[in-house]
Amino acid sequence: MGTLSELFAPDRVAVIGATAREGSIGRAITDNLLADFDGTVVPVNPNYDEVLGLDCVDSVGEADADVAIVVVPPGIAVDAVEGCGEAGVENVVVITAGFGETGGEGAARERELTEVAERYDLNLVGPNSLGVMSTTKMMNATFGPDNALPGNISFMSQSGAFITAVLDWANDEGIGFKDVVSLGNKAVLDEADFVDEWGDDPDTDVVIGYLEGIEHGREFIDTAREVTQDTPIVLVKSGRTEAGAQAASSHTGTIAGSEQAYEAGLDQAGVLRAEGVQELFDASQMLAGQPLPDSDTVAVVTNAGGPGVMTTDAVGESELRMASFEDETLETFGENLPEEGNIYNPVDIVGDADIDRFESALDTALGDENVGSAIVLSAPTAVLDYEELAEATVELREKHDKPVAACFMGGDSVAPAADVLSEAGVPNYFDPARAVESLDALLRYKRISEREYDAPTEFDVDRERAFEVLSRVEERGDNRLGVEAMGLLDAYGIPTPQGDIVDDASDAVAVAQDIDGDVVMKIVSPDILHKSDIGGVKVGVANEDAYDAYEDLVTRARNYQPDADIIGVQVQEMVDLEDGVETIVGMNRDPQFGPLLMFGLGGIFVEVMEDTTFRVAPVAESEAREMTREVKSAPLLRGARGRDPVDVDGVVETIQRLSQLVDDFPAIVELDINPLVALPTDGGDGETEDDRGVAAVDVRLTVDPDALAHPEADEEPAEPEPETPEELEAPEGDTR
Amino acid sequence: MGTLSELFAPDRVAVIGATAREGSIGRAITDNLLADFDGTVVPVNPNYDEVLGLDCVDSVGEADADVAIVVVPPGIAVDAVEGCGEAGVENVVVITAGFGETGGEGAARERELTEVAERYDLNLVGPNSLGVMSTTKMMNATFGPDNALPGNISFMSQSGAFITAVLDWANDEGIGFKDVVSLGNKAVLDEADFVDEWGDDPDTDVVIGYLEGIEHGREFIDTAREVTQDTPIVLVKSGRTEAGAQAASSHTGTIAGSEQAYEAGLDQAGVLRAEGVQELFDASQMLAGQPLPDSDTVAVVTNAGGPGVMTTDAVGESELRMASFEDETLETFGENLPEEGNIYNPVDIVGDADIDRFESALDTALGDENVGSAIVLSAPTAVLDYEELAEATVELREKHDKPVAACFMGGDSVAPAADVLSEAGVPNYFDPARAVESLDALLRYKRISEREYDAPTEFDVDRERAFEVLSRVEERGDNRLGVEAMGLLDAYGIPTPQGDIVDDASDAVAVAQDIDGDVVMKIVSPDILHKSDIGGVKVGVANEDAYDAYEDLVTRARNYQPDADIIGVQVQEMVDLEDGVETIVGMNRDPQFGPLLMFGLGGIFVEVMEDTTFRVAPVAESEAREMTREVKSAPLLRGARGRDPVDVDGVVETIQRLSQLVDDFPAIVELDINPLVALPTDGGDGETEDDRGVAAVDVRLTVDPDALAHPEADEEPAEPEPETPEELEAPEGDTR
Repeated sequence: MGTLSELFAPDRVAVIGATAREGSIGRAITDNLLADFDGTVVPVNPNYDEVLGLDCVDSVGEADADVAIVVVPPGIAVDAVEGCGEAGVENVVVITAGFGETGGEGAARERELTEVAERYDLNLVGPNSLGVMSTTKMMNATFGPDNALPGNISFMSQSGAFITAVLDWANDEGIGFKDVVSLGNKAVLDEADFVDEWGDDPDTDVVIGYLEGIEHGREFIDTAREVTQDTPIVLVKSGRTEAGAQAASSHTGTIAGSEQAYEAGLDQAGVLRAEGVQELFDASQMLAGQPLPDSDTVAVVTNAGGPGVMTTDAVGESELRMASFEDETLETFGENLPEEGNIYNPVDIVGDADIDRFESALDTALGDENVGSAIVLSAPTAVLDYEELAEATVELREKHDKPVAACFMGGDSVAPAADVLSEAGVPNYFDPARAVESLDALLRYKRISEREYDAPTEFDVDRERAFEVLSRVEERGDNRLGVEAMGLLDAYGIPTPQGDIVDDASDAVAVAQDIDGDVVMKIVSPDILHKSDIGGVKVGVANEDAYDAYEDLVTRARNYQPDADIIGVQVQEMVDLEDGVETIVGMNRDPQFGPLLMFGLGGIFVEVMEDTTFRVAPVAESEAREMTREVKSAPLLRGARGRDPVDVDGVVETIQRLSQLVDDFPAIVELDINPLVALPTDGGDGETEDDRGVAAVDVRLTVDPDALAHPEADEEPAEPEPETPEELEAPEGDTR
Repeated sequence: MGTLSELFAPDRVAVIGATAREGSIGRAITDNLLADFDGTVVPVNPNYDEVLGLDCVDSVGEADADVAIVVVPPGIAVDAVEGCGEAGVENVVVITAGFGETGGEGAARERELTEVAERYDLNLVGPNSLGVMSTTKMMNATFGPDNALPGNISFMSQSGAFITAVLDWANDEGIGFKDVVSLGNKAVLDEADFVDEWGDDPDTDVVIGYLEGIEHGREFIDTAREVTQDTPIVLVKSGRTEAGAQAASSHTGTIAGSEQAYEAGLDQAGVLRAEGVQELFDASQMLAGQPLPDSDTVAVVTNAGGPGVMTTDAVGESELRMASFEDETLETFGENLPEEGNIYNPVDIVGDADIDRFESALDTALGDENVGSAIVLSAPTAVLDYEELAEATVELREKHDKPVAACFMGGDSVAPAADVLSEAGVPNYFDPARAVESLDALLRYKRISEREYDAPTEFDVDRERAFEVLSRVEERGDNRLGVEAMGLLDAYGIPTPQGDIVDDASDAVAVAQDIDGDVVMKIVSPDILHKSDIGGVKVGVANEDAYDAYEDLVTRARNYQPDADIIGVQVQEMVDLEDGVETIVGMNRDPQFGPLLMFGLGGIFVEVMEDTTFRVAPVAESEAREMTREVKSAPLLRGARGRDPVDVDGVVETIQRLSQLVDDFPAIVELDINPLVALPTDGGDGETEDDRGVAAVDVRLTVDPDALAHPEADEEPAEPEPETPEELEAPEGDTR
């Protein structure tokens, strides 16, 4: 695929299926293009010589176009696109519906469409798209009712109706756009492609979007990470709730990934997520027009005490803090403000404040080094002119080069002032909470732009051995593995207690004798899930009792379920659960984002308190460490309530090693290390002083045998092993 | 105090301090009254014979007024109010500032004002008030720039600026009010008085307010509970965050109560709490114009798939549920909707829907018995007229008598339709999330209106004994009590482990011998807070070892701190902490709401996970039970993770008994039962089958000796005990 810049700024646009027929989409698009487009429109339709006064050509080959818009019926749309490919038109927007969204025949048609586009290396938007707009040349190649105003926000949407609704509103609000894309079914170009394009576009300052799904999660993360270093991205991703996900799935026909994966993935991508339309535009207006703040401190200057308190509450709920003024600032306020006022933040300049008092107070506040941003908050009064206040606000914002939000409360009387503010890129909100939320989004974006993304650590691991352990599912005819797969963890350097699985009582004694102290013995059988319930676990077994314990465990299992597949008995070193902290490190594979890692403290914390955190793998060391910090129960790892701190470094390394394992083997569908016991770092019981590490006491995983590829397979692509299905050679994230 | 109805609908209003001087408040108020008031305005000012064309009288006694507005300087304001009292004017609004809000002299002046008002039994609003409005007679007795439009919402605000901001906006939005009150400093009339008045007012359908504090928490709860059975109350209470509370405190000069108390108290009062201006008005517009829903199910009918998904997400995050249609409804949709549409909820009638398809789909959805309410969601299209859709929406809402919210997305093009909707009381929102939140508020109010408030159980307790235990602080010269106060719990029927505190080793043996099994022995000293650290606790002491254990504990304490005040040694029955669940039942006294009860599971759940719940005491059985249900860790009480359920009834009763204790004794400033161990109901260890109850193992409390009143004191007011300060005889909640 070539660059997309030509898609948005063509000289000649062909409309394949153009017509003058009233009420038709072909007519609507041709009309819209004719209205403002600073370029040439070429109707393509063998049925006409002329359309709306333009010469009409028979085929796209005669149009010499940079972009083709396809509005022909679905039955001939693929041929039309093929015609574009043959004619060398690289950019094609397929408006036509009746593809994947209808299932069955339509889905087959969409596969054909993708195949043609790939063959000719086309930039294809759609199908089932409202179209594309760009204000660079005022091109409106959509069948919606409105064209966009020029601006610096680029906007993509998986819903065409959402675009028409937003434009109707944005035009009245004076909000402009650079490019607008209706993504349609995303048969070829998807959100990652547009994010990538707009990241390089000097005329796009903010990327916003409405998405119901993300096609290739890991690729999106990697693209968005780069873009968000310079250009903020704000997205509404719907399907957050179970009900919403169902609705999204039935609307777009795609399988919904989990909300946890989207939440983690979008955060890892540096994307700001908005919950609704209003939050989306509140944040994007702030991001589109303001410098980034130097600090998280905000000053509130107001003539209205009560709203000042409301604003302070909103600040308290955000990541911003109320600024503490320098002494000099307080002195100046003390000299200039009436006694009933408040010189501390929020600065109350009192209801009788005129423009001079307001201006001087704002100037003083913005001049304070402790102030990162400011909110100008005003109620309507007889002595204050909102337009004058707007002008002063704009001037002082520029003078101090700090972000400023306006909250001029009131109705239509605010409109002229709001226009002054809007022209200067200062957003104005009726509700103080929205002003605060938007400054908060600016602060959060600033932190994103400063992020440094480390590469995941590559540990030296034994992939061959891991493959061997995983391959056991093929012999076993069962996709689940339990403690018998502890060797998998060992192969990836994740500490496991000393021990082994034996299928003979004498071997049990031999293993027990190799272990210092008493041992734990557990029956190992894929058919016995709740070992404890049938007496399948013996704790504190002395070496000399290991033989009898083995026999007893096997007898109990046989009595419980005569036909159970008994793999053997696990003989394991006793791990001190009392002094350690039980954690869970897990993973499941998301349809969009691939391997999703989970961390939480064991037992009740995950199961009852739902105190968990997620990341899309692979993760760097810093991301793994964040996981151990951001669960609410994290203080328990670091010695809360008089306990000794445990080996958090060991937990962090385990998360990273598991990340590498599940990234290496797409065949691992889900995996839980439960518990991963983190032991006290100073010995806890006073016996040892050194770092006592972590121990993966138990593991459960599900493997997809059909997806199991030898670890060398993707490293030697010249010699693919015939038994490995091709699409599984690379980790999911790399597959398109 | 008389009823307030005359305050809002007077025939004659006197303006004390009326003047024609430009820019003065006296002029502004007189002008505002003259503009629309359907009654007589009487200027009172000895300096003039005439003000703005009206005859001016020298004193309020000559005015024959029902309401007096006081705008004289602070130095003569109290005299002016006294003049009202003498002249028999019962309703007085004091605009004048310079009272409590300025501290010092002003605070003294405010006390005088209150005293005068009480002497003459005046309904006094303010001081430091913007004034009062009522559209009953179009009276605008404020100095704000706008008068309100008539409507059915009554509005009180602790911020005058907030009133001016809201009216400016509401007038443009067409939102009307019945009464509007600027509460000012609330020297006499406060929020509870207006809630009470508006609860009885047939013309007020919704009460809304902005408050920075509530004066008498318990009284407010009791009043609001009654009112909210019929009339919804929606409040913004600012000072939610620490920063906001500080700002509120400096704005109003009152001590802020805790956010936990406000959250619990407002919920117990049946008040819907809004976080900001927008939420306040979104909810109140819905509550002011719609019937209550029969069920929590909502149908979404839309021509826009994407926004339909966004709406479904918002429903998923609310207490509403997406309705599941009856078979008949699905059949009708199947017959009438195009194939690309969706007959399930959200109903997608597709972008080419005209008014007929929209109307018939909405009619079908609202006719479904499974549908409690509906959202009409539309993007602008060429084939749909928003005004026609608005008319159809209004008609169908009335036909089916179910609540309907509109979400007609777009800009100014929506205005004419929004007017049609607004006139019929159907609110319209740009953001689907706001439509959902407002229907959610309606549902939550419906549940409030159906609440049944039980009276708190009155347990048979030994108040005399409790008083004796509490009285020990007076001898001790320390306000804190520990295990030595276990008798307090016992006196109120809260189960404590068998045992006693002894100050002699032989007594220790005697107590131990009375107890089955081994005992726990702990040093008891107000000077030794961390007993375990100095070896001040011995677990599992056999009867025969009790003597030596006593001597040893005392020796250790003496060695640790030779001058420690050693009360003795506690000898206590061993409680089985292993099988039980440790909980904490606590209380602290809030300056506004009085005794605030806290419940949570012990240790990490309260301290690390902050998993707690609060209620203002006294609580009924149902409220105490809710507390044990609504903590996130609640499943652990009911047998999560294979454990036996514990005696929740015992916990519920303990909360109620503690509630009675702290309500009976205002001298108890704070109290923690930690842990209250709840034991398994079926014996857990298999030894017993009966209910094993709860045990309060430890207690700590702080007592205000000056507030300690003999329990009979307030029951026999004829014979007050001289040592008891008068203001502490009744529980805080009853004091005004």
